[in-house]
Formats: sequence, structure tokens, C-alpha cells
Amino acid sequence: MYLSDGPKTKEKAPYLEPFKFIARLFSPYWLACIPLSAIIIVVWHTAVAAQNNVEITVQGTSEVANLQGYLNMIWVLIAAILVIFMNAGFCMLETGLCRQKNAVNILAKNLIVFALASIAYWMIGYSLMFGQGNPFIGAGGWFLSGTSETYGLKPFPEGLPVPVHFLFQVAFAGTAATIVSGAVAERIKFVDFLIFSLVLTGISYPITGHWAWGGGWLGTLGFKDFAGSTVVHLVGGCAALTGAAILGPRLGKYNSDGRINAMPGHNLGIATLGCLILWIGWFGFNPGSELAVNQAVPYIAVTTNLAGAAGGIAATVTSWLKDGKPDLSMIINGILAGLVAITAGCNLVSYWGAVAIGIIAGIIVVYAVSLFDNLKIDDPVGAVSVHLVNGIWGTLAVGIFADPNIPIAPSEGAVAGLFHGNFSLIITQIIGIVSVAAFTLILSAIVWMALKSTLGIRVGQDEEMEGLDVGEHGMEAYSGFVKETDFLMGSPSGGMSGEVRSSSEI
Amino acid sequence: MYLSDGPKTKEKAPYLEPFKFIARLFSPYWLACIPLSAIIIVVWHTAVAAQNNVEITVQGTSEVANLQGYLNMIWVLIAAILVIFMNAGFCMLETGLCRQKNAVNILAKNLIVFALASIAYWMIGYSLMFGQGNPFIGAGGWFLSGTSETYGLKPFPEGLPVPVHFLFQVAFAGTAATIVSGAVAERIKFVDFLIFSLVLTGISYPITGHWAWGGGWLGTLGFKDFAGSTVVHLVGGCAALTGAAILGPRLGKYNSDGRINAMPGHNLGIATLGCLILWIGWFGFNPGSELAVNQAVPYIAVTTNLAGAAGGIAATVTSWLKDGKPDLSMIINGILAGLVAITAGCNLVSYWGAVAIGIIAGIIVVYAVSLFDNLKIDDPVGAVSVHLVNGIWGTLAVGIFADPNIPIAPSEGAVAGLFHGNFSLIITQIIGIVSVAAFTLILSAIVWMALKSTLGIRVGQDEEMEGLDVGEHGMEAYSGFVKETDFLMGSPSGGMSGEVRSSSEI
Amino acid sequence: MYLSDGPKTKEKAPYLEPFKFIARLFSPYWLACIPLSAIIIVVWHTAVAAQNNVEITVQGTSEVANLQGYLNMIWVLIAAILVIFMNAGFCMLETGLCRQKNAVNILAKNLIVFALASIAYWMIGYSLMFGQGNPFIGAGGWFLSGTSETYGLKPFPEGLPVPVHFLFQVAFAGTAATIVSGAVAERIKFVDFLIFSLVLTGISYPITGHWAWGGGWLGTLGFKDFAGSTVVHLVGGCAALTGAAILGPRLGKYNSDGRINAMPGHNLGIATLGCLILWIGWFGFNPGSELAVNQAVPYIAVTTNLAGAAGGIAATVTSWLKDGKPDLSMIINGILAGLVAITAGCNLVSYWGAVAIGIIAGIIVVYAVSLFDNLKIDDPVGAVSVHLVNGIWGTLAVGIFADPNIPIAPSEGAVAGLFHGNFSLIITQIIGIVSVAAFTLILSAIVWMALKSTLGIRVGQDEEMEGLDVGEHGMEAYSGFVKETDFLMGSPSGGMSGEVRSSSEI
Repeated sequence: MYLSDGPKTKEKAPYLEPFKFIARLFSPYWLACIPLSAIIIVVWHTAVAAQNNVEITVQGTSEVANLQGYLNMIWVLIAAILVIFMNAGFCMLETGLCRQKNAVNILAKNLIVFALASIAYWMIGYSLMFGQGNPFIGAGGWFLSGTSETYGLKPFPEGLPVPVHFLFQVAFAGTAATIVSGAVAERIKFVDFLIFSLVLTGISYPITGHWAWGGGWLGTLGFKDFAGSTVVHLVGGCAALTGAAILGPRLGKYNSDGRINAMPGHNLGIATLGCLILWIGWFGFNPGSELAVNQAVPYIAVTTNLAGAAGGIAATVTSWLKDGKPDLSMIINGILAGLVAITAGCNLVSYWGAVAIGIIAGIIVVYAVSLFDNLKIDDPVGAVSVHLVNGIWGTLAVGIFADPNIPIAPSEGAVAGLFHGNFSLIITQIIGIVSVAAFTLILSAIVWMALKSTLGIRVGQDEEMEGLDVGEHGMEAYSGFVKETDFLMGSPSGGMSGEVRSSSEI
Repeated sequence: MYLSDGPKTKEKAPYLEPFKFIARLFSPYWLACIPLSAIIIVVWHTAVAAQNNVEITVQGTSEVANLQGYLNMIWVLIAAILVIFMNAGFCMLETGLCRQKNAVNILAKNLIVFALASIAYWMIGYSLMFGQGNPFIGAGGWFLSGTSETYGLKPFPEGLPVPVHFLFQVAFAGTAATIVSGAVAERIKFVDFLIFSLVLTGISYPITGHWAWGGGWLGTLGFKDFAGSTVVHLVGGCAALTGAAILGPRLGKYNSDGRINAMPGHNLGIATLGCLILWIGWFGFNPGSELAVNQAVPYIAVTTNLAGAAGGIAATVTSWLKDGKPDLSMIINGILAGLVAITAGCNLVSYWGAVAIGIIAGIIVVYAVSLFDNLKIDDPVGAVSVHLVNGIWGTLAVGIFADPNIPIAPSEGAVAGLFHGNFSLIITQIIGIVSVAAFTLILSAIVWMALKSTLGIRVGQDEEMEGLDVGEHGMEAYSGFVKETDFLMGSPSGGMSGEVRSSSEI
Repeated sequence: MYLSDGPKTKEKAPYLEPFKFIARLFSPYWLACIPLSAIIIVVWHTAVAAQNNVEITVQGTSEVANLQGYLNMIWVLIAAILVIFMNAGFCMLETGLCRQKNAVNILAKNLIVFALASIAYWMIGYSLMFGQGNPFIGAGGWFLSGTSETYGLKPFPEGLPVPVHFLFQVAFAGTAATIVSGAVAERIKFVDFLIFSLVLTGISYPITGHWAWGGGWLGTLGFKDFAGSTVVHLVGGCAALTGAAILGPRLGKYNSDGRINAMPGHNLGIATLGCLILWIGWFGFNPGSELAVNQAVPYIAVTTNLAGAAGGIAATVTSWLKDGKPDLSMIINGILAGLVAITAGCNLVSYWGAVAIGIIAGIIVVYAVSLFDNLKIDDPVGAVSVHLVNGIWGTLAVGIFADPNIPIAPSEGAVAGLFHGNFSLIITQIIGIVSVAAFTLILSAIVWMALKSTLGIRVGQDEEMEGLDVGEHGMEAYSGFVKETDFLMGSPSGGMSGEVRSSSEI
């Protein structure tokens, strides 16, 4: 039984025990731990890898989101620059359409007004408009001290950084104020215009702006004013209308026998330049109002351009038929009317709708200019006809032409107007127009009347006859040129002060 | 034998069988399944993870592609705005270089022409140019009703969205029309210019444009006109040349004894401003023609700027040597000549090539102005010399200077011209120049002649003497200023109508 | 013992050996290899997967980095276009603020100067400024022949492509030269201005620019001049000051009895337009100087705008209080003074700091204009007061107002000025101001003196009286208008040459 014992002897061999212990370490049962631990390791490894991947990919995604945020930011910055450039447009337009003896005054008003708007809107306007107050007025983050949340913006990169949103909005506020300048031109005291501009850009414009754009009750109601036919142009137009009405007409504008004297602009070159600057400024105004970069932006640029073009052509034809000749100032006003009118609905109407809105705007503006003259409301540059009348028309037009089938997805969602079977939108639009107009008319009238009863808002008759440039600023815009008034005053250079004359003759 | 039996007894112990069964569940053979299943699980897990990663990454890639598409879109939109701003440049340039008595007319023409171009190109021009027709004419997608495919664009994000491509192209169409305005200035009837502009921007320009840029035969042939020395400037120049020739010179321009009367521009301030606006507009015109954002864009901006600068300097020196004094209007025209000439090859030539092209353009333009005067073709602003002559020179210059070693990869691939051993390109360029010029000259001549024989294209002699502003528009550009003609007509303000006078004197 | 033998018999059964061999292949010890290999396979697989993921993600990341590079590139290109547009601003501003008899000359100077700057800076200026030379002067890559490294730029996409960096910098160089134009206006010979501009933009400006921005000693020292209050405006102002001083005042400017004759600008319309163009140009000048797209960009835009606005308001109020009436040219200069002053520190100061800097700038500029007049240094447009004085003030202001707590991370890191407890920065700023001013004053004086002793720098007295337009260019800016000087010379059109007259009368 040696053989049979062998194993048993082996098994019992004491010197083998250490080996058996080691062997048991590698026993199948223990070995099972290896694959288990392999699973653990591998799963952990994979999980880590997956986690790394997720992190890396998320990092990439977040970089992409950041980049979209930066692209949005830069576009809105450039749009803001274009809108700020509109100050040059309004400045040239209004100066060119007035008389040369008041040119310095109008230039000075249009130059300083954006400076005033910048400071007033920085101090309180932006907070009143976008601060998280109540449906009627915003508050908080004065002096641009707030964060994104303060002004109702989503955090970057989803939302715009605060400074670029502020810059875009202050440019809009400045636009509202420059509209006023033209209507009150050639007779208002410089200081009154400065004060009124501070109130308009610091208080009045921001409050009605809050209603529509700052989380206020009009926006909640479904009021559609994409880029400001009402919020900017109607507001500026209402302030202009009250100013022009309370100031009264320029001396000699309306004869007692009812005849209306034309007071032609003194420099149609810069007036036309102003119109063309405004035209390209509108490519910041409307497409920039998307406040982001997406396919709606160029679509809006095209509707804007079509409406401006259609307005210009319609006004040319209308003025040609009405007065026998195509009036350059009507071509200018027609283009601007079309641009004002498309502003509210540029992202909601079809190309055909844009052309229709523009054509109607171009026709309206020609008759509106006559209307206000017949009402003896003297608006030297037609600002009320362009901005108020077509601000109203444009806001109504959204309720009529809004087309849910346009080839972009507006940020406001598909919206239908009257022609697409929705009768309720136009009611909301009318509510918006009436409420914003009422507020602005009343507040503006109060401010103008207060100024009238304290400082006086109108220059003296002699100063108005001589021109505000000498009276208000002690200088003239076109030194060295002979003007017709020089002859009326006895000598070719009689209109100038002695010092000015002596030097310019050298 | 207790010890030896021990194991055996154990093995056979029936009460141990359940444990042995359980132990066999953990037997090495079974255990082998664990690592196998571990492999399966892990591989599956990893595969899933990989799949997730791929999906996430693909999603990221598509977001990145979208973002590149948006960046392209915004850049081309901004470039389009710059090109549209060129309307202001041409308007100021042409008005300033003409006489003040025709200023309103030129302003009105240059203002309305972009409105007309916008509508005509929207209705049919864009379809004729980019619609998928045949090699000679495009068709389809009228009124901007098509999709990317309709107009030969790759779908977004690879290609541009339709609206931004349209806006860029309509800006170019408008440019071609504004070029005409200057050459026919001071004697054309307003209505004829409007009709001609509609035909040019709606039909003529789009057809030749289709040949080169819209998938037509010239592009297929290898014709190189990156941003339109031929497609835009030569076309505008040909239309201008036929117009100026068929209209005949302004009254008093060419004396019967062969003497040429200078008719100096009335406002070189706005003319210079126009040149500077055009200069920056060209940064949209040329770099924007890349229709995308890549490293070619700033390279093109630099070649464009160098050529414009070199053209200005060369024209200054040439005019100084030729006439004894540096003529401001020649500095202006030299800059524009350099810019026109670099337009075709701005993405294919070296910096040195750009400077050479600009210098030659600046020299050419000075002599071209004299040439056309000697031919008694009266072009008040030198439009034919700038746009037609240098459009030809610029298109030829690609065939001469195209450099395959420039540090960018042009979208057209590396292209060599004469100086780099390729003799065939310049033949193609000549074919392009001749065919586009022939088509435009013939079509323009037919339209001008048709207008002449129906409406008449020229204002009456009295109206031309008095100025088109009063005759065509019933207004003057500089009301309130005394002009020399006032003295010739008997009184300092004799040139004005009674109504205008009475009001501006107030 | 059958049962007990059974196992033993089995073990020894020879026909079972093959099976036992196979079984041993699946023995637990071998089986341990399966999980091991599983681990190897899985880890390899995971590693590969991870590697794939990393590769894919890296690819995505690199596309994202490229895209950020393209966004930076396009933004800086657009900013460069805005800065180049400033040429139009300076051109209109300076022309409008001078007399009409010198208008063509000023227009020509401001138009050709950017052409000259473009060529000179392309040839050597850019290399002297950004070439990798020593701390005092750069070298290499002449004629824009270098790569990113040549000009100290990080490779794309981290750094800007060379062409766009060049274009931005050449626009700055051009700005420095246009500043000079205004101060030397109305008496300098055209040819001297051209030569001086070439030296300034090709040599002088690049050398001091290298010190601060091109890797030179001032930058190393910690000198802070973000967008060029010193590098651009002080340099232009010093060159202007030496030019104005060496030229001497215009004839009739300063009476022997100490009385100063005002020589009012002839066209405040285009002067105001110039100011507004400069205002928007500054949105390229300052925010563009970030040379990238990040959240600092819009912040800088807002500080820039606040300072310009505050400067305009402060100058208006100061001039109103000082002289009794708000002077339009002071509103213009106040805005520009605020913009110049914020240029150095626009990325380092708070909104409040920007407003303070602007207010002080607006007050300084009004008194500086008087000061230089009292010193009998005749600077027709106030260029020295705006650019030199406020360049100094703006550079000092960084040392005073720099705020480490502003809500952006400036590329230069957080920087504290005097008001935040750091007394050393202002010392560095003073070193920078003094050294750059000394170099520019000395080099400019040498060049002006050399020109004076060779070509002569001043036109003759008769030419100065008659106006440089006729003398230097043989033309007038406002042909057809009657100027006051016409009456002094005997007839309303006596100031024109016969040829000009005969044609413009037709």
C-alpha cells in the first residue's frame, strides 16, 4: 500500500504545510477574487474614464456655450455702436433740415444729449427700466452696481454681460431723446432742453420701457414691440409733440390768414447723410434687439431694409403725385417712416408684410406732415410724423401682419395677427399704445409746463429772429460764408459780431 | 489508519453534500464564468460609455459647426452693413463733386437708388443671379421665397443663411447703381434715372453677376473676380459710360474751340468724407466677400488697404507732377482707383502685388480722367475712370499678379498669374472683361436709348442752367446761403422762389 | 475498500490522463489567467476608448480654440475698421474748425495721411514697434514679411493672425499722425506735412510704441497705458505742439497789444459730425485694444462712454460758467478730452473712476485751450489741449484711480492706484509720460527744424492770406458760394480764378 499511502504521507508531510498555505492563497476560491476585483477595478476605471470623458466633454460644451455667449456679446456691442452712431444721423438730419442761423444750437443739443442720456441712464434710468421692482417700475442696482440678476438677465453665457446690455439700452434711451430735439428746434432755450432730456432718459422713458421690456405689466399682457416702435419712437414722438405744442410755432411759420410758410432746411447734404447713417444704424437697432446671435438676426435685417426701402419709394411717389415733384425731405422721411414702422414687428412679419408696412408708412408720413401743419403744430423736421405717427402704425401693424409661418423661430414664439386669424393681439397692441402714449404725454406736458413757468422755455423774439446760434452760443455755424440775412441787415457780413468778423476776414 | 481514512470519511459524508454542491457553485470551472462575464460587462460598459462619448462629442462638434456658421453669418451681416454704408459714401462724394445747384437732385438719386435696388433685387434680381437656372441666367425663388438650395448655397451651418447672403448681395447691386449716378449727374431727368436703376439692379447686373458668381459659364471657365472689379465696378462703369455718352456733356463743359471748362465741385468737405466712408466700406466689400470667417479675411483687409493707400499716394504724386499742384479730387479718385483695382484679386496677390496694383491704378486714373474729357465724354465725378477703367485694370491684374505662395489658403485654391508662370489666367480674365462689358454696354445703351426716345432723358436747357434742384424737386440744398449765381440773376437772393425766400428771411 | 480506493483508481486510470490534462488547462491556476487577461484587455480597451475620447474631445477643443481665435480676429478687425473710420472723424473735425479758405488743404492732409501711414508702417513702422529687437527698438519682419513670432504674437488661435494685428496697429499709427494735422493747419506747406507724417508713423511713433507695447523697457517697468493715452495721444500731441510752436501763429491771430483774435471754424456741422464719428471710433480704439473677446470688452466700452459723456458735460458747464455761454467747440473738445483721458485706464478703473476722469478732463481742456493761447502757441483746433494735456492726465489717472476690485479680470491682472493704496504706480506712469514726451518732442523738433531749414515749412504771407486751398491745391472747397472775403476783394466772386468762375456760373 506504499503507493496508496504515498499521497497520504504527502498530505501529512509537515514540511509541505507552508507550500500548501501558499497554494491555498491561489486556491480557486481565492482566485475568484481576482475577477471580482478585476470587475471592480475595471468598472471603477471605466467609471472614472467615463467621468473624465463627461467632464472633458462637459468642459468642451461649456466652452462652446461660453463662445456663443461671447459671440452674442460682441454682436450686441457692435449693434450698440451702430445705434450710438444714430446720434450722428439725427444730428445731421435735424441740423440740415433747419435754418443755418440755428445750426450751432441744434448741433450742440444733439451732441450733448447722448452725454446726458449716458449719465442719467447710468445713474437711475437703467435701474428704473430693468431693475427687479414691480410691474410698474423697476428698482435696484443704481449706478450700474448690480449683477445679471439685478437687471433680470440670465447669467453669462446664457444671458448678456451687464455692461453690453447697458450700452445697448442706453443707446436706445439716447435715441428717444434725440427725437425730441428736432421738433423743438429753432426756438427752445438750450438749458430747458438739457433738463427735459435728463428727465426723459432718466425717468420717463425707463418707466414705460419697464412696462414693455423690463418685466412689467405690458410685456406680461403679451404686448409685442420687438425693437421699440412704441417703447422708443412713440415715446420720443410724444415728448416731441408736447414740446412743439407747448412751445408754439416758430415766428412767421403760420400767417394769420392761414397761409403756411415753408422754412426750408439749410443743408440737405448733411440731412441726407443723416438719413443714410440712420438707415445703417437701424441694422443695429432692429437685428441687435434679438440680443443674441441666431438665424433671426439676418432675417430681421432684411425685413428692416425692405420696409425702409418701400417707405422711401412710397413717400417719393406720394409726394410726387401730391405736390407735383419728388421732395427730397419726403424721400428722407419716407425711409425713416418705413424703418420706424417695421421696428415693432421686424421679427414677426413676412417679407411681404414688411414691404406692406413700409409702403403704408411712406404714404402716411407725407399726409401726417401736412396734418400737423394744418393743426399749427410746428415740427421743423417732421419728427412727430415720422416717430409718433409711424410708431403707432408700426405697433398696430404687428397686430395685423404678424405671421406664424415665417421661416425663423422668433424668440417670442410664433405669433399671429389679424390677417392670420388672431383678433386679440391688436387689442393688446392698442392697449400698449394708449397707455405708453398717455403716460408720456402727461409726464412730458408736466415737465414742459414746469420749465415754462420757471425758467421759460422759449428764447426771446429778437434772439429767435437773429438765430439761436449767436443768442445761445455766441457763435455761428458757417463763419466766412455770406448768408441772405446779411443783406437784409445792411451789409454782407452784418450778421456777425465785430470780433468774429475781424478775424474771419483775415 | 484513522488519519488516512479521515479524508475519505469526510468526502463521503452525506451530510456534507449540500455544502459540496454549494462549493461546486464556486468551483474553479464556474468561477471562470465570472471573469468572462466581467469581460462582457466591462466591454459592454466601455462600449456604451464610448458610444455615449461619441454621441456627446458629436453633439459638441455640431454645436461648434453651428457656432462657426453663426460667426460667418454675423461677419457677413456686418460686412453687408459696411457695404450699405457705401451708399452714404457715394452720395457725399458725388454730391460734393458736382455744383450746388444740382445738389438736391444728386442727393435724391443716391438716396432713392438703394431703396429701388432693394426692392428690384428682392423681386427678381437675386433669383436671376443666384437661382439655379442655366449657365447664362438664373431662375427660381423669386421674392426671396427659396431655401438655401434654391440659391446654390450649402445648408446652414456650412453655408450662409439666405437672408444674410441676400443682404450682402443686394448691397453690391446697389453699389453698381450708385456708380451710374455720378456720371449722369447735373443733366439727367430724375424719372429716367429711377427706371434705369430698376433695370440695372433687377436685370442687367444680376445676369452678368450670374455668369461669374451664380454658377454661370464665366465662373466655370475659371474667371477670377473675387469681390467684383468686373462684376460690380466694371458693370457700373459701363452703365455710367453709356449714360454719359448718350446724354451728352453738360452745357458749357466743352467750348467749341476745344477748351475744356472745369466745373469744380461745390463741397469738397462732404466729397472727402464720402471717400473716407467708401474706404471703410471697402473693408466690408472685399473681406466680406470671403463669405466666411477664416484667416483670409484679415489678409484681404490688408491687401485692400495697401492698394487704396498706394493708389492715393500715386495719384497725388502723378497729379502733382502733371499739373503742378496736388489736386484733392485726384487724391480721392486715386484712393478709390486703388480700391477698385484690388477688388478682383485681393485674396490672390501678395502685399507687394497689392501695392503695385494700387500704384498703377493711381497713375491710370489721373490720365483716364483727361482721356475721357478729351473724348468729350462728360463724367462730372470721374466715375468711369475710377470704376470702369480700374475695374478692367484690377481684373487683368489678377491674371498678372496672382501669387500661389501667399500665406493664406484662398477659397479658390492657389492661383498663379503671369508673373508666376501662368499665361492662361489672363486670357480667361480678358474673356470675362470683354463679355461682361459687351453685355452691359449693349443692354445699357438699349435702355438709355429707349428712355431717350420715349420720356426723354435730359432736362431742358433752362432747367439745366438754373439747376435741377429747383426744376426737378422744387427746392434748393443750401437755403439761406448766398451763391454766386444770385448776383448774376440780379439780387443776392434772386435765385430763390418767393415763398422760399420769404420764409428763410424770417 | 472499493469506495476508498475509487478515487485512487480514478487518479491512476491511464485513459483519463488526456482529460486530466485538459482539465488542468482549466485548473484554477490557469483560470486565474482569464481574469488577469480580462483586466489587461479591459484596461487596454478602456485606455483605447479613453484615448479615442481624448482625441475626439481634443479635436473638439481645438475647434473651439480655433473658433475663439476667429472671434477674436473678427472683433479686432471690426475694431480696426472703427479706428480707421476715425480718420473721417478727425478730417471733418479739423476741417470744420478751420477757415473755409484752407478747407481743401486740411481735407487733403487728413485724407493722404492715412495712406502715408499705411505704407510707412507697413514698410518699417510695424517692425520697429513689434519686431523682436531690444528693449529700446524693434527690428525684423520688414514689409510685413514675418510670422507671429517675429512680432511677438502667440501663434493662432491663441494669438491674433498677423494681418489683423497689423491693421489694428496701423490704424493707431494713423491716428497719431492725424492729431498733428489740426495743430499745424492753415499755414503749413503741404509737402512738409507729408514728410513729417512719414517720419512720425514710420519711425518716431513706433519707437516709443515699442517701449510700452512692443516688449520694450516701459512695459517691463509696469507702465500702464492700455489703449494709448500716452502711446498714441501724447505722442501725437507732442508732435503737434512742436509743429505749432516752430511754425508760429497764424497771421493776425495774436495782436501786438496782446489781444487774441478768435478765428472761428467755418463749418460746425461737419466738425460736430467729426466728433460723433470719433466717439464711435473710440469703441474700436479702447475695447478693441483688449485684442481678444472676453468680458472686459463691453466693460471697457462702458467706462469709455461714461468718461466721454462726463467730459462733454463738464466742459459744457465749465465753458458756460467761464464765458457765459455753452460753446459748441468746447462741448466737442470736452467729449474728446474725456475719451482721450480714459484711454489709458479704461480697463482698470471703476465706473465712478471713469466718470471722475472724464469730468476732470472736461474741465482741464477748457483752461488748457486758454493757456496755450496765452502762451501764443496757435493750435487752431485745440489738438494739443485735447490730446497732449489729456493724454498726460489720462496716463496719470491710471496711477490714481486704478481699482483692483472692478468686476472684470483685466488682462494685466488686478492693478491698484493711489486711491487704493498703491503709491508706486503713479511714479511709473510719470516715468513713462516724461520719457515718451521727451523723445517725441526732441525728435519732432529736429525733424520740423530740418524741414524748416531746407524746404521751409510755412507758406508765404500772401498765400496764407488768400488761403492755402488756392495756393497749395489750385482749387476751393466751396465753389459757387459767396464768401465774405469776396466782398473785401472787390466783387462777390473775386476770390476765384477766372476759369473756375466762368464754369461755376454756367
